[in-house]
Amino acid sequence: MSQNIYDNETFFREYMKLRGEKSYNDLLEQPAINKLLPDVKGKTILDIGCGYGHNSCLFAQNGAKKVVGIDLSQKMLEVAKKEFCHPCVEYRRMDMSELSSLTQKFDMVYSSLAFHYAENFQKLIADIYVLLNEGGYLIYSQEHPIVTATMDCKGHHNLDESGNFVSYTFSDYAKSGQRVGPWFVEGVINYHRTMGEIISMLAHTGFIIKDVVEPIPESWAMKEKPDLIKEYIKPTFLIIKARKPE
Amino acid sequence: MSQNIYDNETFFREYMKLRGEKSYNDLLEQPAINKLLPDVKGKTILDIGCGYGHNSCLFAQNGAKKVVGIDLSQKMLEVAKKEFCHPCVEYRRMDMSELSSLTQKFDMVYSSLAFHYAENFQKLIADIYVLLNEGGYLIYSQEHPIVTATMDCKGHHNLDESGNFVSYTFSDYAKSGQRVGPWFVEGVINYHRTMGEIISMLAHTGFIIKDVVEPIPESWAMKEKPDLIKEYIKPTFLIIKARKPE
Repeated sequence: MSQNIYDNETFFREYMKLRGEKSYNDLLEQPAINKLLPDVKGKTILDIGCGYGHNSCLFAQNGAKKVVGIDLSQKMLEVAKKEFCHPCVEYRRMDMSELSSLTQKFDMVYSSLAFHYAENFQKLIADIYVLLNEGGYLIYSQEHPIVTATMDCKGHHNLDESGNFVSYTFSDYAKSGQRVGPWFVEGVINYHRTMGEIISMLAHTGFIIKDVVEPIPESWAMKEKPDLIKEYIKPTFLIIKARKPE
Repeated sequence: MSQNIYDNETFFREYMKLRGEKSYNDLLEQPAINKLLPDVKGKTILDIGCGYGHNSCLFAQNGAKKVVGIDLSQKMLEVAKKEFCHPCVEYRRMDMSELSSLTQKFDMVYSSLAFHYAENFQKLIADIYVLLNEGGYLIYSQEHPIVTATMDCKGHHNLDESGNFVSYTFSDYAKSGQRVGPWFVEGVINYHRTMGEIISMLAHTGFIIKDVVEPIPESWAMKEKPDLIKEYIKPTFLIIKARKPE
């Protein structure tokens, strides 16, 4: 089972503060993943790590027939059920390691920034493959392997004398496995996997890779947050679109 | 047309010296790419950037029906024709930008460490797609995008006080395009492309991605060259196996 850090009081409070700010998710990850989405009208969708449900609700508003949003965090789901409820959306508390308990099938499995919390990626994508209808899509984002690589979680940007971002330093890329570092609170657990491991595992499971995106900021986003210039040095996110053969 | 640096006298002399040494190619790239090869018996094979022809000849020795080895360098092909000739191997001087002039079809297109010299990757893989029989494989290696990224070609490993490799510093990952740097001689031209660009271009062309490998050294190789420990910090090579649908 994944760590339930989102139900940590301090983490949850700090995380929810991001909603009011211009976050990397809003400016970089969400615009890029949205470009990969097929028309959701009439589709059945599983949203893994749905959080407070904004995407699940949006899929329903855009005409999805049925959306199942799962998350491990009770606190997140309470917000979802209060603020992002919709007759076509069902929220369920469930860890992504328990997907095989689902009985329905889906036309699309979506996940925003959750899979780097999954300890067993091989099982996760095998479970998703089974849950997808033929021709169905898996579209997900995660932290980029360059960012998750360094063992002590101290990969970092380097500045020149004028304070400009000039380069990025990292290590331990080939050493897959658990990383424990601070994010709002100490001891947040991620799992690092290399690009090769991720893509080959998807391919070996049977998925056809359609797109691999390392998003760079659009000009409107750069105006909102100039330090997104760092994305030209190294990517922060990895987004993959894969399809189960028809 | 790609730069013909291998016909530079100094470059050629220095490059050929590597053959007597334990190179990264022999210890890391070749063992990894060989694992991805299908049985070549009875197959027609195109070897792009065949160099002095050791792989083309080996394919023929392993039972390939016909191998066409192309390279831009007259000097390399002279060695190939002298040292690695075989009745089933035909060597042709040709730039990889001219693939569309070939009229035969192939069961496998192979290329070791040449594609980072290609200016137009989109055209290259579109040409290869046409040349492949249905169900045929493209298997190739190149310098890893993390290595080709930095504009001034000064990505580098960092050492601790005891001289151990501890991290890697790079920049400009999202800035695709030409890189000009020294390798034996000044002014060697490579083309940097991101992982996302490479894999998405292959997928959009119609290829099914089968494997993406960022090789790490096996224990026998580590004994030969202990500084291969650096490969656990960041990958040097990228190897891709893709298939044209049947």
